[in-house]
Amino acid sequence: MGVKLGILGLGTVGTGTVQLLQDGAGRHPLLQEIEIYRVGVRSLHKHRAVELSTEVLTTDLEAIVNDPAVDIVVEVMGGLEPARSLILKALNNGKHVVTANKAAIARFGAEIFTAANQAGVYVMLEAAVGGGIPVIQPLKQSLSVNRINAITGIVNGTTNYILTRMQTEGSNFSDVLADAQQLGYAEADPTADVEGLDAADKIAILASLGFDGRINLQDVYCEGIRQVSKTDIAYAEKLGFVIKLLAIAKRNISSFSSSLSVRVHPTLVPKAHPLASINGVYNAILVEGEPIGQVMFFGPGAGAGATASAVSSDILNLVAVLKTKTVDPNLLLACGHQEYCQIAPMAELVTRFYARFLTKDQPGVIGKLGTCFGNYNVSLESIVQTGFQGELAEIVVVTHDVREGNFRQALAEIQSLEAIDSIPSLLRVL
Amino acid sequence: MGVKLGILGLGTVGTGTVQLLQDGAGRHPLLQEIEIYRVGVRSLHKHRAVELSTEVLTTDLEAIVNDPAVDIVVEVMGGLEPARSLILKALNNGKHVVTANKAAIARFGAEIFTAANQAGVYVMLEAAVGGGIPVIQPLKQSLSVNRINAITGIVNGTTNYILTRMQTEGSNFSDVLADAQQLGYAEADPTADVEGLDAADKIAILASLGFDGRINLQDVYCEGIRQVSKTDIAYAEKLGFVIKLLAIAKRNISSFSSSLSVRVHPTLVPKAHPLASINGVYNAILVEGEPIGQVMFFGPGAGAGATASAVSSDILNLVAVLKTKTVDPNLLLACGHQEYCQIAPMAELVTRFYARFLTKDQPGVIGKLGTCFGNYNVSLESIVQTGFQGELAEIVVVTHDVREGNFRQALAEIQSLEAIDSIPSLLRVL
Repeated sequence: MGVKLGILGLGTVGTGTVQLLQDGAGRHPLLQEIEIYRVGVRSLHKHRAVELSTEVLTTDLEAIVNDPAVDIVVEVMGGLEPARSLILKALNNGKHVVTANKAAIARFGAEIFTAANQAGVYVMLEAAVGGGIPVIQPLKQSLSVNRINAITGIVNGTTNYILTRMQTEGSNFSDVLADAQQLGYAEADPTADVEGLDAADKIAILASLGFDGRINLQDVYCEGIRQVSKTDIAYAEKLGFVIKLLAIAKRNISSFSSSLSVRVHPTLVPKAHPLASINGVYNAILVEGEPIGQVMFFGPGAGAGATASAVSSDILNLVAVLKTKTVDPNLLLACGHQEYCQIAPMAELVTRFYARFLTKDQPGVIGKLGTCFGNYNVSLESIVQTGFQGELAEIVVVTHDVREGNFRQALAEIQSLEAIDSIPSLLRVL
Repeated sequence: MGVKLGILGLGTVGTGTVQLLQDGAGRHPLLQEIEIYRVGVRSLHKHRAVELSTEVLTTDLEAIVNDPAVDIVVEVMGGLEPARSLILKALNNGKHVVTANKAAIARFGAEIFTAANQAGVYVMLEAAVGGGIPVIQPLKQSLSVNRINAITGIVNGTTNYILTRMQTEGSNFSDVLADAQQLGYAEADPTADVEGLDAADKIAILASLGFDGRINLQDVYCEGIRQVSKTDIAYAEKLGFVIKLLAIAKRNISSFSSSLSVRVHPTLVPKAHPLASINGVYNAILVEGEPIGQVMFFGPGAGAGATASAVSSDILNLVAVLKTKTVDPNLLLACGHQEYCQIAPMAELVTRFYARFLTKDQPGVIGKLGTCFGNYNVSLESIVQTGFQGELAEIVVVTHDVREGNFRQALAEIQSLEAIDSIPSLLRVL
């Protein structure tokens, strides 16, 4: 008989998934084997965009994960609790789990995957990163013959939408945010998106897959886009860059220990770079490996249909597993990590920087800046007096690759110079 | 014990694959289970970039596909024969096959997949399209829950390199081709690339996967890039387009029967389109489906390392299958088609056109053009007299969506006008 799903949640993603599964014609034939057996909701009386019989809908989510008839639990309720507890119970009961919950996986991944491995079942999470874009499965399968050197992504549609509009319209962050909230592209409380926390969850998951180890979310450096000004976007443009919120996981090749840097921050991206032309709510993930070189995955990072596509493809994979009654080591591998990845502190990062200074227009101020940078081995690519803001002269600096710790020391010394009024902007350059 | 490979061919791709497999540290652990058991070559005395013992190297390729000890045959010799016969023999002997041979699959796919299905083994072909880019596996798995509406790709690196250089340098086709040949980006006989034949093989394969049916290669319309002039590239640029050689497979939604259009031709691509910024030797494949929307895969379309990555990922998938001793219906599906897709004749295609006319500078020639187009329901987006070539006036026309048959009829009538000297360019617009 059919494979029985217990779906937890019937919000945007849950509804999209039910719609896709109820409308199987022209899709993969294995979808016909699926029965939507239970759907757990908060209220039985709310109007729903999908038709489900009264015995399918239930408010008892515990009963779903404990029901022996359920083969696969599809967690699309989001949030940390009770999602975490329900996932763990489902796994302990020997059920495979499909989840779109990046926040729960990024925080409780170790616990969840340990439970899955003990029970010999799968946790599938294609929808947790990049919406509908197939990126988890390719990282686990096709790309896993490569040594991954870096994963760099635009993985948050809200912030990319805001930055794209700031770029094209020359607008302020707060104006675009307010408009995005009105249009439904940003939530009423935009913190998780705007502060980079959502992107941090996602890069932690991608790093774990790409570098075969667990990631401690606290080790992921995270800086949002509130500080990105239209002034800096305009200067970046003149210098040949666009500013993007990038999530980056990178192997530190030069260091003796094999550490990673895992971080989220606004970044100046050269216009010719594949990620520079990813605009609006779209997401893209660039994977660099040996021997493949650069591969990029692009698509809708959110939305009911795209996310339902990813959730359903995970369900499909599990149906294939259940039909053949085997555990495919290929699929399982990514859950098997026991070790935590060592993540280097940001001071050890080697990167280029963009900085903007406001200075009292004294003769020799550029020379003084140059001297301070030189004292800490910070080599400059360009230093330009770009104009005036009131009585103050504005100077923009772009460095070559430098150790972040050294750069910060130079900045501290510069800040103490009498000629320096302030350092309004400091951004990393890809 | 290990899984035994019989590799046919030790050229660029074969050598890259052996190098990858011999250097397993930091890659998927299942690669350790692989033994390079036999490698078939033309000459035992040629210097090789990889070390292989004398009992591994052999010139007897028949012996490899007939050897009961061989689990997987990896066909990386290319060409039609003896590749086709060796693949068929391997399959009939119950061996799984990995191949990078788009020409053989596009021509003999029906025969090859029939043999594979009869023997209950797999034919894996990730490397046949898009070099290292994972696109075959995502189409078979992650995206297969979608109804695919269109697959549009830049799948030939040589022509994309030539067009990119023509665009950036304002050069002629023949000059750039000669230079590309010198640099090794184009072959001494560039026919398969430049005439679009290589791209046609690849879109036939992608269409078969995306639309679940066999494709008769003779039905694929194919037009190369020899006729693309720097004049048209410059006009396209002014109109907001770049010219790319696109391979397109699309469901004809409007028609009553469910036919496809499958075609390769130079195309004006709007600059904001995701494929417009794919430059140089890179490939990209854009998949449009319901409910996912647009997803694009980007990466190196050729080269030893990239192709070795794809070949090795196929081998890895098969090793997982062999370890669990099951046939995964998910993997097999794409080989199972019995029916041929119905491909509509080009006259039925609905598309926009760009055309350039040289006319005798008579009063009213634009009016006459407009009348002819109107006679065949060809609606114009723009018609501009762009300048003069000698005594002749040059007029550039861009249409709205029109039926190609109607457009051709209008052109025939226009060609017969006394005021028309010639129609040097005719290109489709995405």
